[in-house]
Amino acid sequence: MTVNVGVIGVGMIGQEHIRRLMTTVPGAKVVAVSDVDEARAREAASFLSGIQVYALGEDLILAREVEAVIVASWGPTHAAYVLAAIKAGKPVLCEKPLATTEADCSAILDAEAAFGRRLVQVGFMRRFDPQYLAMKETIASGAIGAPLIFQSGHRNASVPAHYTGDMALTDTAVHDIDIARFLLDDEPAAIAVRAPRRNSHAGDVADPLMTLIDMRAGALVAIETSVHMAYGYDIRGEVIGESGTVSLADRSDVVVKANGAFMGRVPPDWRERFAPAFDGEFRAFITAAGEGRVVGPSAWDGYVATVTTLAGVKALKTRKREPIKLGRRPKLYAT
Amino acid sequence: MTVNVGVIGVGMIGQEHIRRLMTTVPGAKVVAVSDVDEARAREAASFLSGIQVYALGEDLILAREVEAVIVASWGPTHAAYVLAAIKAGKPVLCEKPLATTEADCSAILDAEAAFGRRLVQVGFMRRFDPQYLAMKETIASGAIGAPLIFQSGHRNASVPAHYTGDMALTDTAVHDIDIARFLLDDEPAAIAVRAPRRNSHAGDVADPLMTLIDMRAGALVAIETSVHMAYGYDIRGEVIGESGTVSLADRSDVVVKANGAFMGRVPPDWRERFAPAFDGEFRAFITAAGEGRVVGPSAWDGYVATVTTLAGVKALKTRKREPIKLGRRPKLYAT
Amino acid sequence: MTVNVGVIGVGMIGQEHIRRLMTTVPGAKVVAVSDVDEARAREAASFLSGIQVYALGEDLILAREVEAVIVASWGPTHAAYVLAAIKAGKPVLCEKPLATTEADCSAILDAEAAFGRRLVQVGFMRRFDPQYLAMKETIASGAIGAPLIFQSGHRNASVPAHYTGDMALTDTAVHDIDIARFLLDDEPAAIAVRAPRRNSHAGDVADPLMTLIDMRAGALVAIETSVHMAYGYDIRGEVIGESGTVSLADRSDVVVKANGAFMGRVPPDWRERFAPAFDGEFRAFITAAGEGRVVGPSAWDGYVATVTTLAGVKALKTRKREPIKLGRRPKLYAT
Amino acid sequence: MTVNVGVIGVGMIGQEHIRRLMTTVPGAKVVAVSDVDEARAREAASFLSGIQVYALGEDLILAREVEAVIVASWGPTHAAYVLAAIKAGKPVLCEKPLATTEADCSAILDAEAAFGRRLVQVGFMRRFDPQYLAMKETIASGAIGAPLIFQSGHRNASVPAHYTGDMALTDTAVHDIDIARFLLDDEPAAIAVRAPRRNSHAGDVADPLMTLIDMRAGALVAIETSVHMAYGYDIRGEVIGESGTVSLADRSDVVVKANGAFMGRVPPDWRERFAPAFDGEFRAFITAAGEGRVVGPSAWDGYVATVTTLAGVKALKTRKREPIKLGRRPKLYAT
Repeated sequence: MTVNVGVIGVGMIGQEHIRRLMTTVPGAKVVAVSDVDEARAREAASFLSGIQVYALGEDLILAREVEAVIVASWGPTHAAYVLAAIKAGKPVLCEKPLATTEADCSAILDAEAAFGRRLVQVGFMRRFDPQYLAMKETIASGAIGAPLIFQSGHRNASVPAHYTGDMALTDTAVHDIDIARFLLDDEPAAIAVRAPRRNSHAGDVADPLMTLIDMRAGALVAIETSVHMAYGYDIRGEVIGESGTVSLADRSDVVVKANGAFMGRVPPDWRERFAPAFDGEFRAFITAAGEGRVVGPSAWDGYVATVTTLAGVKALKTRKREPIKLGRRPKLYAT
Repeated sequence: MTVNVGVIGVGMIGQEHIRRLMTTVPGAKVVAVSDVDEARAREAASFLSGIQVYALGEDLILAREVEAVIVASWGPTHAAYVLAAIKAGKPVLCEKPLATTEADCSAILDAEAAFGRRLVQVGFMRRFDPQYLAMKETIASGAIGAPLIFQSGHRNASVPAHYTGDMALTDTAVHDIDIARFLLDDEPAAIAVRAPRRNSHAGDVADPLMTLIDMRAGALVAIETSVHMAYGYDIRGEVIGESGTVSLADRSDVVVKANGAFMGRVPPDWRERFAPAFDGEFRAFITAAGEGRVVGPSAWDGYVATVTTLAGVKALKTRKREPIKLGRRPKLYAT
Repeated sequence: MTVNVGVIGVGMIGQEHIRRLMTTVPGAKVVAVSDVDEARAREAASFLSGIQVYALGEDLILAREVEAVIVASWGPTHAAYVLAAIKAGKPVLCEKPLATTEADCSAILDAEAAFGRRLVQVGFMRRFDPQYLAMKETIASGAIGAPLIFQSGHRNASVPAHYTGDMALTDTAVHDIDIARFLLDDEPAAIAVRAPRRNSHAGDVADPLMTLIDMRAGALVAIETSVHMAYGYDIRGEVIGESGTVSLADRSDVVVKANGAFMGRVPPDWRERFAPAFDGEFRAFITAAGEGRVVGPSAWDGYVATVTTLAGVKALKTRKREPIKLGRRPKLYAT
Repeated sequence: MTVNVGVIGVGMIGQEHIRRLMTTVPGAKVVAVSDVDEARAREAASFLSGIQVYALGEDLILAREVEAVIVASWGPTHAAYVLAAIKAGKPVLCEKPLATTEADCSAILDAEAAFGRRLVQVGFMRRFDPQYLAMKETIASGAIGAPLIFQSGHRNASVPAHYTGDMALTDTAVHDIDIARFLLDDEPAAIAVRAPRRNSHAGDVADPLMTLIDMRAGALVAIETSVHMAYGYDIRGEVIGESGTVSLADRSDVVVKANGAFMGRVPPDWRERFAPAFDGEFRAFITAAGEGRVVGPSAWDGYVATVTTLAGVKALKTRKREPIKLGRRPKLYAT
């Protein structure tokens, strides 16, 4: 009943995933790790018992004891690992982006099609977030009427040193793009990106950005990304329907009244904000893997996200509305 | 169409009333002031034009140009001024308490009865507060079922030096007692007062207090008074009905997100919190006076409040539940 | 001390203004009314005492008893009345728009310049709204850092039958445009308008709209207008600064808990939402008029608003970013 | 590394616990069940694999494969099972109440003392609730000053048919009593209970109740229990300190604006409200059991809760403040 998991990439995110598998996800056992920095892999393994360290992710994937793979390495390495996992017929949970180029995404779609069933779950954890799920449920209930606009706000307190130019789109807005597709149940048709006056703490990063996406059925998606917003990690969202709206609530455990104010807490980072989402994401992956299935955001979702963010990168440069050209959705991903 | 008003007592509250009459209440003109401190009266008058200063409140009441009287002097002086106004047949808006003894309250009830119609409005401004009015309307709508419990919280950031022992009941909780009667449309039957561990900033004042009042129809009123709550002036209230509840909302103009928190503002004092209530109170008084009528909280409401707070003062000492014995409600105050 | 006011236009808004002058604005007396529909003018007058009815607004403006003019007639008639008031040297509070063409706005600027001092206050009442004032104060305090983005949402439950195509910009978004200038203390440089899928209740009106304005200093203003949002009249706003944000709070008098939900109230219309703003606007106009001055939003503000909304109307058609070309700001309006 | 768990009592709560152990608590395996209704036990077991059914809870406790015991049977049976588990030297998580009489509680304290270390965790799951933990942390931070009053509200939408007279204290308020001790870090000294007019849906149950507890250091605890509050399951709490307060926040995933209101969701029952608390409670029990330890609320906490609720039952009848006489706290439970 236990699923043996191998984790490729044990940086901040990979370590968080290992901790989660051990403390909140029944039925999973981490049996192997790999990292481009082998010393880091050995250190991560030292906290666990009976764990194998592989110098190469490809070897981890092929290892007999590994039944399911988690890819949390550097983005440009994702595609090769995912393709190897598909080749090995093992379920793989790949952090976003699925791949950094459209060609690589397409190769993955082709490989999965050739295999004949889904093996890939992409790490769009927001789809498991109770708040977004409640939002989707509200839309489905008809309580706000047909959706016309989705306003999304993605605010980070700060970003790491390696966060450069296009990442506000490829690493940050990519989550908003995926959740917009999920909430509106529609595909993007065109994208434009506006860069207001730059935040003085933003260095080379175009920050903030306002990204506007036209969905095929005509709804408008407006995504604000602000990744140097010192005050905290704040994920905003409002869907405006024909007769009402639904918003992500500001949630705080307590309200403190002191010094002339009533106050709630804004989470400091994604770890806290999306803890229930990651719990759900990993439980879904492990439960499905135990049953020989894969659920959740698919390689198709990863493909569309990459095509859209790359069009966004172009649009930021051209300052024009760029069309988003998607291939035909393979039957494997029929909804 | 203009009502000429005389104001007795031009301390902090009296001056606030004069300012309000001039800036937000059409149809009123302050024509006379009086104060036990005649210099203070002269100073207050100096900011106005064509205003008469009287050494004695009684003379102000009798003055030909004064058509309506506002009593904002020290509590123990209220009764005499109110009786004089009734004798003069002039509408009077008297700050709470109506009188500090049951006997004086009764004398006022008798005088008004003898006059044959209402002349007295008591300064329970909460009855004009939009928030309490919405609360009463919610109860009346049946949305929460029959009320069973009213929890009231009355928190002052601090109190002035002259605020002593019993004032937490006679000056502070008296407002909660009146609004409880208003919301529940019922009279108090018994009162008990609990004094938890004293706030270390409270000196001689029993603070906080928890006052419990049994209403005749069986609802329970629980009043928390905390008058050294540095954080602000915070008026809390929740009516618990058989199937739902209604609470006063925390209202802030804006929500600020900064430094890891989202924050609203708590008003610093009663001036700001109850500005709309005072506006409504004075407009009601002036409008009615212009039409030869008096509306709003009556001498009977003032009488019940005084009897109840005095029973509370006793209950704080006896540590027992003290009955509240009210006379029969005169026809003049039939609802 | 009383200012005698003449009101031109006694439709829904004009009547509301008369009611306000009588009930919440000390120092004002409505002495004359005029309306294109003289019967309606007579009916409005019948509720007041000692009031003169004029068939022509121009005659009302010239009437000896009229000391200050309020223009609440149909938009296209505003310019002529305002010019007449300036010519008569009388302070005039003109509902938005100041004028419907740039030429008329310029004529007013010229006339006021010729007169030598301000006589015109434009009815951008939001500048007197306590919530927007708190927002501006928060920005000024530095609590959120320098503003980068202002997101504004303007939602009407419904619009009257005469509300047609361009009015979402010229009558609705015009308020957001003015308040953006006020909050950011900057002028608009370019405007683009996006029309998502139309609300099925919107008929011929392009609704919703997303209007994007580049301010000269680089901040971005994004205005959502949704004028068939059945749920209520909801004015949203958030200023995103470099380190924090400030938003208009949802304010409700009470929170009701019933039927599985906690609930606050959304105002049904502008009358309720902006009551304190209108109170402030009129008090400012009357107080200043009594002192021979005019304050608040100026003819310049009216001019910029008209130029900007007209550029927006063009942008909606061209689907391009249209530049906003403003004349030089006359010295009369130096800040 | 896996802890084998036996569950005694598989009614609604027991089944919920089994589900939780399987889906959210790594390291636990349910290997045995028992129930007074053996058919129900067999049915519960049928959903699991490799599980043993015992007719008698005592046999389950003694079973070799059972390493840790969960007691979720009818309250009056708890003591015998807990004593048997102590005798067997196996960690036991016992739903509240620990026992229904003071004598039984004392017997458990004695047994644990004789064993020499803790084996009992009592099911006061609120101590693991993130909201209460944030509340406690706020108090500890000094942000609100020393606590003076704790107001607790415990509202159930409805209660099952077997819920009778004293259960509002012994089954409902018992949670508030325990969390009051936890938050204030103090023991109760006296208890009084007020019964307002009864909710017309309450039948024989005294509902609502207002329970007042004097803590030894002088803080006052006021507990409102309302167990027929149709609107939902609503746990309220506010600690009033010397300079500020901290309250449990109303948390909803989303805010919906529709039909003139903005709305959040109130949870329908304890399952949803306290899901994170139960997750934490069980993880703590299983993790500690795996390490040969027991943590969380102790037998002492269960003892104090029972003594206090029984004094409350008496106070409800006598209508007097009843003293709470506790034995000396054994060293095993030193804080």
